[in-house]
Amino acid sequence: MAISTPTSVTDICLAAKAAAKPLAALGADVKDRALHAIADALVARTPEILEANAKDLEAGRANEIGDALLDRLALDAERIEGIAAGTRAIAALPDPVGETIDGHRLPNGVDVRRVRVPFGVVAVVYEARPNVTIDAAGLALKSGNAIVLRGSSTAIHSNRVLAAIASEAATAAGVPEGAIQLVAGGGREELAELATQDGVVDLIFPRGGEGLKNALKAVATVPVIYAASGNCHLYVDASAKLDDAEAILINGKTQRPGVCNALETLLVHADAAAEFLPRAAKALHAAGVELRGDERARALAGPGIPIALATEEDWATEYLALTLAIRVVDSAAEAIDHVGRYGSGHSEAIVTQSTDAARAFQLGVDAACVYVNASTRFTDGGEFGMGAEIGNSTQKLHARGPIGVRELTTFKYLIEGTGQVRA
Amino acid sequence: MAISTPTSVTDICLAAKAAAKPLAALGADVKDRALHAIADALVARTPEILEANAKDLEAGRANEIGDALLDRLALDAERIEGIAAGTRAIAALPDPVGETIDGHRLPNGVDVRRVRVPFGVVAVVYEARPNVTIDAAGLALKSGNAIVLRGSSTAIHSNRVLAAIASEAATAAGVPEGAIQLVAGGGREELAELATQDGVVDLIFPRGGEGLKNALKAVATVPVIYAASGNCHLYVDASAKLDDAEAILINGKTQRPGVCNALETLLVHADAAAEFLPRAAKALHAAGVELRGDERARALAGPGIPIALATEEDWATEYLALTLAIRVVDSAAEAIDHVGRYGSGHSEAIVTQSTDAARAFQLGVDAACVYVNASTRFTDGGEFGMGAEIGNSTQKLHARGPIGVRELTTFKYLIEGTGQVRA
Repeated sequence: MAISTPTSVTDICLAAKAAAKPLAALGADVKDRALHAIADALVARTPEILEANAKDLEAGRANEIGDALLDRLALDAERIEGIAAGTRAIAALPDPVGETIDGHRLPNGVDVRRVRVPFGVVAVVYEARPNVTIDAAGLALKSGNAIVLRGSSTAIHSNRVLAAIASEAATAAGVPEGAIQLVAGGGREELAELATQDGVVDLIFPRGGEGLKNALKAVATVPVIYAASGNCHLYVDASAKLDDAEAILINGKTQRPGVCNALETLLVHADAAAEFLPRAAKALHAAGVELRGDERARALAGPGIPIALATEEDWATEYLALTLAIRVVDSAAEAIDHVGRYGSGHSEAIVTQSTDAARAFQLGVDAACVYVNASTRFTDGGEFGMGAEIGNSTQKLHARGPIGVRELTTFKYLIEGTGQVRA
Repeated sequence: MAISTPTSVTDICLAAKAAAKPLAALGADVKDRALHAIADALVARTPEILEANAKDLEAGRANEIGDALLDRLALDAERIEGIAAGTRAIAALPDPVGETIDGHRLPNGVDVRRVRVPFGVVAVVYEARPNVTIDAAGLALKSGNAIVLRGSSTAIHSNRVLAAIASEAATAAGVPEGAIQLVAGGGREELAELATQDGVVDLIFPRGGEGLKNALKAVATVPVIYAASGNCHLYVDASAKLDDAEAILINGKTQRPGVCNALETLLVHADAAAEFLPRAAKALHAAGVELRGDERARALAGPGIPIALATEEDWATEYLALTLAIRVVDSAAEAIDHVGRYGSGHSEAIVTQSTDAARAFQLGVDAACVYVNASTRFTDGGEFGMGAEIGNSTQKLHARGPIGVRELTTFKYLIEGTGQVRA
C-alpha cells in the first residue's frame, strides 16, 4: 500500500493493476473474511482514527471550511461503529462475481454464456466525508476490484489512517497486497494523471459537486460514470389519494433535503390543486419549507402561507434545502413535458389512482427511477436491497441509478465447444 | 431528414433528439413494418443507389484510394439484396424495448423492476462501407433509438441516397420524422461538434481505424464505446485433440484474415509442439500463411517450411493478413500470461481435453470472449444469435463483445407502491 512512501499516481495505479488479477480470482469466503477483518480493525483502532480525524478538524477550523463541511468530516466512536456495520453488511451480500447472467446453445452445439467478472481497477474521487474511504474500499473488494481512492485534502489524515487500516486488515486476511490504494495528493494535476490511466484504470466514479465533474470531463480519457444532480419532481395527478400525496411530498422534501433524491418541484393537476394545495402548503410551511409557485399555485394555496413567484430559474434549480417550487398543470402530459424539460434524470414520482396516468408517466419520463405512489427517497442502494452504493448514476451507459456491487462488475462471454469452426 | 438542406451538426442532432421521444414509445409492429419497408425500398430503388455509388467509385478511382477500399465501397444489385436481407433479419429479432430485466419486492411492499429502454440518440461514425448506413439505421430503429450517421466522405453520394431511402421509407411506415439523420460533411470539425453534444447525443460508436479512435478520444465528452483491434490467440494445450486444434487454427487464421476475430498468434504447449507444429506449419504454409516463430517453434516445425524469427513486435501485432506468429510455451499459465501481456481483450481460445486447463484459461484470460475448443471466428452478433451488430466492444463499460440491438438499450427502474415513504 502506497501510503508511507510517496509515489506517483501512475505507480499507485500500476500497483493496483498488479493486485487486480489475483483479486479477481479470489473466492467469496476470503473476500468476506477480509471485510469482517476490516470492520473489526476499524473498531479496534478507533483511537488512532479519531486522533487523525482531530488533525483534519483542526485544520478545517483553521481554514474556516464551515460548519456543514466540518460536520461531514467529523468522526466519533458511533460513526466508526456505523462504518464498520456497513462493511459487515457488504460482506453479507451475495458475491456478484461468477454469476451467469444468461446463456444459450448455438445451433452448432456451441454453448455461449455471459458471466460476471470484476472490472479490474476502479477509482473513486470524492470530497470531505472520510466514510467513503471505507465504503468504496469495501464495495470494490466485494466485487473483486482493486481500488484507487482519491479523497479530499481536507480529510487527508483521516483517509490515510482509514485506508491503511483497510489495506492491512485485508492483506492479513488473504487479499493481494496493493488492492486498496490511496492517492494522497489532492491537486488537479494528480486528478489529470489519474483520469488518463488508459489500460490501467478501468473506470472512475466521481463523488462530488459540479466543479469536480467538470474538471474530470475536461481531462478524462478513462471511462467515467457521472452522477448528475437530482432535480426531482412529484406530480400529483387529478385522481391522487391526497393523503398519500401529502405523505410522499413531505417525506421527499423534508426528510433529508440535502440529498440528491429529495424533491425540488411539486406539480399538481388543476383538478386536484384547489383541494390539495392549501393542505400541502400548510404542511410544508409547518415543516419550515420556503415555497415558490406559479400564479395559479399562489392563487390556489390559500391565504396565510407566503409563496414567492417562481421564476424560470426555480424550475431548473436543485435547492438541496428546505425550498420547493410548485406549478399547476392541466394534464399528466404537461407534467411529463415539464419533467422532460427540467428534470436531471434521477428520480421522478407520480401519485395517482389512474392506471393510464401511471403508465403514461412511467413510459414518458426518461429518468433512472420512475415512481408510482411511492417516495423518491427510496432511490438508494440500501433501500433497493443492493447493499451500500458507491454513488448514483444519472448517465445511461452501463448502469443507471444506485451503483452497488453488481454495477461494479462487467462480464465476459465464455464459449465452449467440441472443435466447432465457422462455416 | 437533413439531407437536402445543409444544416449544422448541432441542428441535425437536435432533430434526432426531437424524434427520439416518440420513437422510444413506438410499438414493435410499427418498427418491424418500417424495417421491411426500408428493405423493399432498397431493392426497388437499386438503380438510384448504383448511380450514386458510381459517382463515389469514380471519385475514389480519381483519388487513387486503392483497390481494397474501392471494393469495400462498391455496391451491386446482389450486395443491395444482401443489405435488404440484413434489414429483414433485424425485423425478425425480438424487440429489446420493454423487456423486464429483473425485479423484486421490497420488504415494505414496493415493487422495483428494471425495464429496457432505448438510449435516445446514438451516433455511428464509420469509414468507407456504405452498407453500414443501413445496418446501423436498422439496428437503431429496432432498438428505438434515433440515429446520427456520420460516414466517410469517400461514400458520401451512396450514403446520402441510402439514408434518404431509409428515412423516407421509415417515415412513411409511421416512424417519427427525423429519426434517421446523416451528417454529410466528413471533416474533423464536424466530428468534434458531434462528439461534444452532451445531453443530446447519448452514445457514439466509432467504426474505423486507430486514427478515428484517437481523434474521438481527444475531443469526445459524449460517452464513446471503443472497439480495440483484435490481437487474438489460439493456445493448443498439451492434451489438445490435434485434429480439432488444426481445424480451429486454419479456420481462425485463413477464413477471413482481415477481420478482428481472426487469429494472430499460435501458442503451443511444449508437450504437443513436436507432433502438432510440423502438421500445423504444413497446413498453414499450404494455405499461404507466412510464419514467424520463436526459436523453439522454428526448431520443432520441421524442415521445408520457412519460419522467420519472431520479434517482440510480432507478439503485439494484429496482422489482419495471412501472417501468423508462433510461440512454444511450457504451461497453460505461461500461455495465459502471454495473452494477458499482448492480447487486446477481444477473443482468445484454448484447445484442450483438460478441464483444469480449460477452466484456468477461462478464468485467467481477461477478454470479451474466451473460447474452449471452438473458433474465435464465432465472435459475431449474427453467429451469437443476436442478429446484426453495430460493432464489437473491447472496452468493459456497458457492453463487451458484439453490440446488437440489446446492447443499444439502457434501462430504467420502474417502482410502484401504495403510498410508501422512507422511514
